[in-house]
Amino acid sequence: MGNKQDQTRSGCPIACSLDIFGDRWTLVILRDLLTGKSRYSEFLESPERITTNILADRLARMEEAQLITREPYQARPPRYAYRLTERGRDLHPLLREMSRWANRHYPETWIPPDWFMEE
Amino acid sequence: MGNKQDQTRSGCPIACSLDIFGDRWTLVILRDLLTGKSRYSEFLESPERITTNILADRLARMEEAQLITREPYQARPPRYAYRLTERGRDLHPLLREMSRWANRHYPETWIPPDWFMEE
Repeated sequence: MGNKQDQTRSGCPIACSLDIFGDRWTLVILRDLLTGKSRYSEFLESPERITTNILADRLARMEEAQLITREPYQARPPRYAYRLTERGRDLHPLLREMSRWANRHYPETWIPPDWFMEE
Repeated sequence: MGNKQDQTRSGCPIACSLDIFGDRWTLVILRDLLTGKSRYSEFLESPERITTNILADRLARMEEAQLITREPYQARPPRYAYRLTERGRDLHPLLREMSRWANRHYPETWIPPDWFMEE
């Protein structure tokens, strides 16, 4: 995570994880990447209605933490496609566990598709 | 989660979960509760050095979300013991998954004790 040494609160793996993605948006964007989205405009279309400034901030932080990489797909104006790294993709089991918990305790939440929940 | 209808961004179980604990501190406090801490003063002693105002805010939100309950253990001055509800305790698998991810990708993080990691 780039300036990890500045931000890390302890050696606890839970605190360390939350230093990276402990906010309301990072894992929503990661969900979108896992479900096939890769472009700025696609993230903006998600039902949670992320704002452009939060999206830009979180993408930059995720790149710094090496959860994603970006590659230009258009030169003028510059446009980037975002892809998960192995480290980012490896959060898929955490999102499954989070979905299971929410589905158990908040029956009104959506059931994710089978392909998302299967190991 | 009390005023859930006001805060929920979508029916997505991931977004819904993050509406409840998507911040840098809630799951650190939950870790402390899982490891046997129950009192305000004990949470303040953790190595992450949470501040009193953030701790008070997060405990109130966790109670509102029915992750914890509190009971007075002393009348004057009033002091409370905080306990996990079933909903709160059911986040233990998520914290295990988070720990596994951090241990894989940040080798400097602590390995949790076996009793914490065993299902």
